[in-house]
Amino acid sequence: MKSIAAKCATALAVLSLSALPVLAQDATAAPETPAVSPEVAYIFNTLLFLIGGFLVMWMAAGFAMLEAGLVRSKNVSMQCLKNITLYSIAGIMFWVTGYNLMYTGVDGGFIGSLGPYSFDPVGGDALDTGYSTASDWFFQMVFVAATASIVSGTVAERVKLWPFLIFTAILTGFLYPISGSWQWGAGWLSEMGFSDFAGSTIVHSVGGWAALSGAIILGARKGKYGADGTVHPFPGSSMPLATLGTFILWLGWFGFNGASQLAMGSISDVTDVSRIFANTNMAAAAGVVVAVIMTQLLYKKVDVTMALNGALAGLVSITAEPLAPSMWATLFIGGVGGAIVVLAVPVLDKFKIDDVVGAIPVHLLAGIWGTLIVPLTNGDASYGTQITGIAAYGAFTFVASGIVWYVLKVTIGIRVSDEEEALGLDKVEIGVEAYPEFGTGSQRL
Amino acid sequence: MKSIAAKCATALAVLSLSALPVLAQDATAAPETPAVSPEVAYIFNTLLFLIGGFLVMWMAAGFAMLEAGLVRSKNVSMQCLKNITLYSIAGIMFWVTGYNLMYTGVDGGFIGSLGPYSFDPVGGDALDTGYSTASDWFFQMVFVAATASIVSGTVAERVKLWPFLIFTAILTGFLYPISGSWQWGAGWLSEMGFSDFAGSTIVHSVGGWAALSGAIILGARKGKYGADGTVHPFPGSSMPLATLGTFILWLGWFGFNGASQLAMGSISDVTDVSRIFANTNMAAAAGVVVAVIMTQLLYKKVDVTMALNGALAGLVSITAEPLAPSMWATLFIGGVGGAIVVLAVPVLDKFKIDDVVGAIPVHLLAGIWGTLIVPLTNGDASYGTQITGIAAYGAFTFVASGIVWYVLKVTIGIRVSDEEEALGLDKVEIGVEAYPEFGTGSQRL
Amino acid sequence: MKSIAAKCATALAVLSLSALPVLAQDATAAPETPAVSPEVAYIFNTLLFLIGGFLVMWMAAGFAMLEAGLVRSKNVSMQCLKNITLYSIAGIMFWVTGYNLMYTGVDGGFIGSLGPYSFDPVGGDALDTGYSTASDWFFQMVFVAATASIVSGTVAERVKLWPFLIFTAILTGFLYPISGSWQWGAGWLSEMGFSDFAGSTIVHSVGGWAALSGAIILGARKGKYGADGTVHPFPGSSMPLATLGTFILWLGWFGFNGASQLAMGSISDVTDVSRIFANTNMAAAAGVVVAVIMTQLLYKKVDVTMALNGALAGLVSITAEPLAPSMWATLFIGGVGGAIVVLAVPVLDKFKIDDVVGAIPVHLLAGIWGTLIVPLTNGDASYGTQITGIAAYGAFTFVASGIVWYVLKVTIGIRVSDEEEALGLDKVEIGVEAYPEFGTGSQRL
Repeated sequence: MKSIAAKCATALAVLSLSALPVLAQDATAAPETPAVSPEVAYIFNTLLFLIGGFLVMWMAAGFAMLEAGLVRSKNVSMQCLKNITLYSIAGIMFWVTGYNLMYTGVDGGFIGSLGPYSFDPVGGDALDTGYSTASDWFFQMVFVAATASIVSGTVAERVKLWPFLIFTAILTGFLYPISGSWQWGAGWLSEMGFSDFAGSTIVHSVGGWAALSGAIILGARKGKYGADGTVHPFPGSSMPLATLGTFILWLGWFGFNGASQLAMGSISDVTDVSRIFANTNMAAAAGVVVAVIMTQLLYKKVDVTMALNGALAGLVSITAEPLAPSMWATLFIGGVGGAIVVLAVPVLDKFKIDDVVGAIPVHLLAGIWGTLIVPLTNGDASYGTQITGIAAYGAFTFVASGIVWYVLKVTIGIRVSDEEEALGLDKVEIGVEAYPEFGTGSQRL
Repeated sequence: MKSIAAKCATALAVLSLSALPVLAQDATAAPETPAVSPEVAYIFNTLLFLIGGFLVMWMAAGFAMLEAGLVRSKNVSMQCLKNITLYSIAGIMFWVTGYNLMYTGVDGGFIGSLGPYSFDPVGGDALDTGYSTASDWFFQMVFVAATASIVSGTVAERVKLWPFLIFTAILTGFLYPISGSWQWGAGWLSEMGFSDFAGSTIVHSVGGWAALSGAIILGARKGKYGADGTVHPFPGSSMPLATLGTFILWLGWFGFNGASQLAMGSISDVTDVSRIFANTNMAAAAGVVVAVIMTQLLYKKVDVTMALNGALAGLVSITAEPLAPSMWATLFIGGVGGAIVVLAVPVLDKFKIDDVVGAIPVHLLAGIWGTLIVPLTNGDASYGTQITGIAAYGAFTFVASGIVWYVLKVTIGIRVSDEEEALGLDKVEIGVEAYPEFGTGSQRL
Repeated sequence: MKSIAAKCATALAVLSLSALPVLAQDATAAPETPAVSPEVAYIFNTLLFLIGGFLVMWMAAGFAMLEAGLVRSKNVSMQCLKNITLYSIAGIMFWVTGYNLMYTGVDGGFIGSLGPYSFDPVGGDALDTGYSTASDWFFQMVFVAATASIVSGTVAERVKLWPFLIFTAILTGFLYPISGSWQWGAGWLSEMGFSDFAGSTIVHSVGGWAALSGAIILGARKGKYGADGTVHPFPGSSMPLATLGTFILWLGWFGFNGASQLAMGSISDVTDVSRIFANTNMAAAAGVVVAVIMTQLLYKKVDVTMALNGALAGLVSITAEPLAPSMWATLFIGGVGGAIVVLAVPVLDKFKIDDVVGAIPVHLLAGIWGTLIVPLTNGDASYGTQITGIAAYGAFTFVASGIVWYVLKVTIGIRVSDEEEALGLDKVEIGVEAYPEFGTGSQRL
């Protein structure tokens, strides 16, 4: 979504529209009616946040299904639990500290203010905000949850539940809001001219950096990488669930990118939302098609998980600038995203970075790509500033996340024992098997 | 949703807004334009019903997945069939008798009128209703389906298909509409000042009471309770499906509570809808967090099904008053809902009440809690009246449902034979296994 | 959706509404304000396309889950891959050639013009179209994807991946748009008075005809039909996924039919959308109830897959005219759709036409039924013209699809070898099993 500065401009535009007829009424007996009254614009804007918000909330289910499908059956209950709990914690933390750290009183700086957020009162009538503040909070809150979901996929199958939840609370209550304030809170990067429409960097790369630091500090799953450099595939337990998760994420992305226009109370705003819907869809489509063709050419078979991650990489790639690109540019941007995933997965394995669901290629690398390429289609952005922003988010999140993961590691520990890992997290920490009757799988070890 | 009385007030408010400028035009040559014309408000209100309606319709899929995940694999096809069929029957019955019994001509009394419902004609232009009557019907219809879905989970794995469907038809065509008329049809409880915004009692407790009477009359599944008081867990067949179902219900609840505002044609209405979205989300989040912490403390492991039911209990708890509570109050209300589930499940087992999916703690007990606590945040409600309402709905639904279940039992029978129960309902009544290739489960008995 | 001609009428109506007050202002000092300004109507219309569009996009997930649930586990990954890839290809092809072939310059003829589509520019303000062109493109694009999804279910479990994708590209880039232009592009059938509101024929029958020609040319799965005429059932691998898919499709259909009203910027339009929501839901409900009762009477057991297909057949049946029917007529139309499915499935088997998911009864036969019965409730339609339209779409699509399938067959081949079919497509063409840990199924052959 755009920065608060841009928001204010929108709100002012709405107000000036509404002010005009009043002035006109002073001057003439035949006043011009505003095409869209400020009240109607307020309702439309709020509705956009609500629809966008529930679509992005639904992405929490998408991450849950994607990850449940891509882990082995002995860890599926745990992955389900982590996803519903991280979504809950993200919401609470974003209310307790997150929103105000991100959006209140940043003023070109590095951080907002501390304290829980207050909504409009019942029957609120503060027309001058241009939308309901609760709808805005709801929409921003589901974004932070997406960031946390990215992490859970990468560190799956070996991280302990409680340290993971503590990390989630810190990420969603502090790390994401602080770095988010730099751009969307009208902080220093926003003043410098950094451009990240709906969060290729601010949401996806941040999630990816947090995941990467976790994967490194946590180490790979036992048996994933042989001493001789061989990589052992650990096939996911359910491709249809992974597919379902991808479709859910794709659907949710219309809210993620579309509602980041932040307004639909004018015909030009709603027209832009429409362009964003079309571009978002087509970037994903290009990611799929490129991943399918590339895996066919490289491996003589088409890997369904690559097709799914190709869709997601296309979506992440277009998220930094889903409005400006022509359709040709959109297909290029999304298609490169798909290619990045196909090429990056084996590279990560070479470095023995064990990313269970492929979240680092999808969210971190495609997020960097999408942010970097913004100046191609958006004349207001510059490559230098984009690189500055990408580097700033990367350095802060990687270091800060790394410190948190490290402190958790040396205090309460972040990893289950080898024996527990072999048994599966469902048996060890949950006590409820995901599929108790489907017998020959990893959960029978 | 609010009662018809409240609805009328809203409609009048809209009309008076629209009337004002006309009056103004009589008095002056520079008329004030209404901020939101009655036509625009009509469109917004109708759109709220349509969006809310499709979100609540989607909850039917949520119940289906939740229940499919929580029964054993030998009964999964049956649970799928029951859910899609009960949704269908609920719609037809609510058209044949339900809507008019609930909403037409109640006039402070105990019941509406008999007969099928008529929609607006094609190209309808009855502006004075404030919204399309078909959109209102659609929205109310999906609510009654939710009530029926609650029952199907509790009585799963041993109730026969056809008696269950007959019960569904009676519940959705008569029992729910009659008791619903007392409040939402502007009946006696509404006049007394009972407060149940979106149906903690009217929808959820009613479903829970019907489920409870069914569970008692039907008896527990064979082998669930040992003669010595031991309780044998029958683990659900798929945790990811149960998780998916919970996320679907959570998503649908934005429509359930949000659209129960019944209007978004003014900035104060849409602001209230936004508050409701935020509160609904956070009550669920609190339910999850409390359930996770409590199961960790009580059992040293975190039960994923408790986390899921904690979310649902939080949602049910906030449904009676999702607008007025501050965020602190919301977290308290939802969190207590989560605690209720964790504490009540073993109590039900002590009484040998076999509730397959935990619907009674979630919908009945959290529904009572949510209704009871309304006066804490809503000054217009009183504890006495809330208790009266809770008791009235409980007595009527428990007794009336019990009579229906009992008559079905002594006539056509409601329970499959022991042998059939062991085989599983899929083999006995459906003939289509849910997972014919996943071999070692209960369906191989 | 209605034809472009009807669209233009709507746009003109909106414009005339907006023009009126201007005229009035010339005549009097107390101008009448338009109830809904053209700008507000534009926003509402665009929003309808966006909401309808994301709901129909979600149907792609519905088809994926339905088909993943109804094929054997050894082909599930392939079915997932095909569905996400066909959705991607459909979008790209509909942009490259489809939209303009279907909607631009048809002028009562048989085909539009060639070339990629251009959207509104950023910040578009072309009020006279009455809605954002990008939103319209998005909405039309998801329809073509639905057509392609229909085919993939029928030819599952034996068609090769790449020929299927090539067929998809031709169907979505050429065949569907050309025939679609005859009606929705204001072509010859539209001028003749053919009536197909949301595409019982134009979308569903067309998909069904393409599927039928594919099924015939491809032949049945090995072992499906014995030499002695026996039919061997190949049970689907997951009933809950098939149920989920059906619920997703049902939900998406509110967008499919509802947004085909093409406008909600007036109270009569939004009221019509509401009627369509109610009718769409109830036709599906009737389809379910009839299928459940009929399978009980015919087979003494209730087949859950018939109930699911009954819902879909009810939905397809009402799609040609979801607005005009009274509720009685709606239940009749949807109920007959359910009956068609129950009766047609064994007939197809008699002809040894192997339709894996039952798409031909659901989409082709119920599509014909729904189109044929339009004159019962819509006085503007005639049985003669309806039959002409049905025949024209059938002849063109069956022949053209057949040629494409045939050319693919004699060139690159469309069917895997017998050995590969026995192994399953997941092993042969994907290399990723759908359920690697659930051991005793078809994938262990």
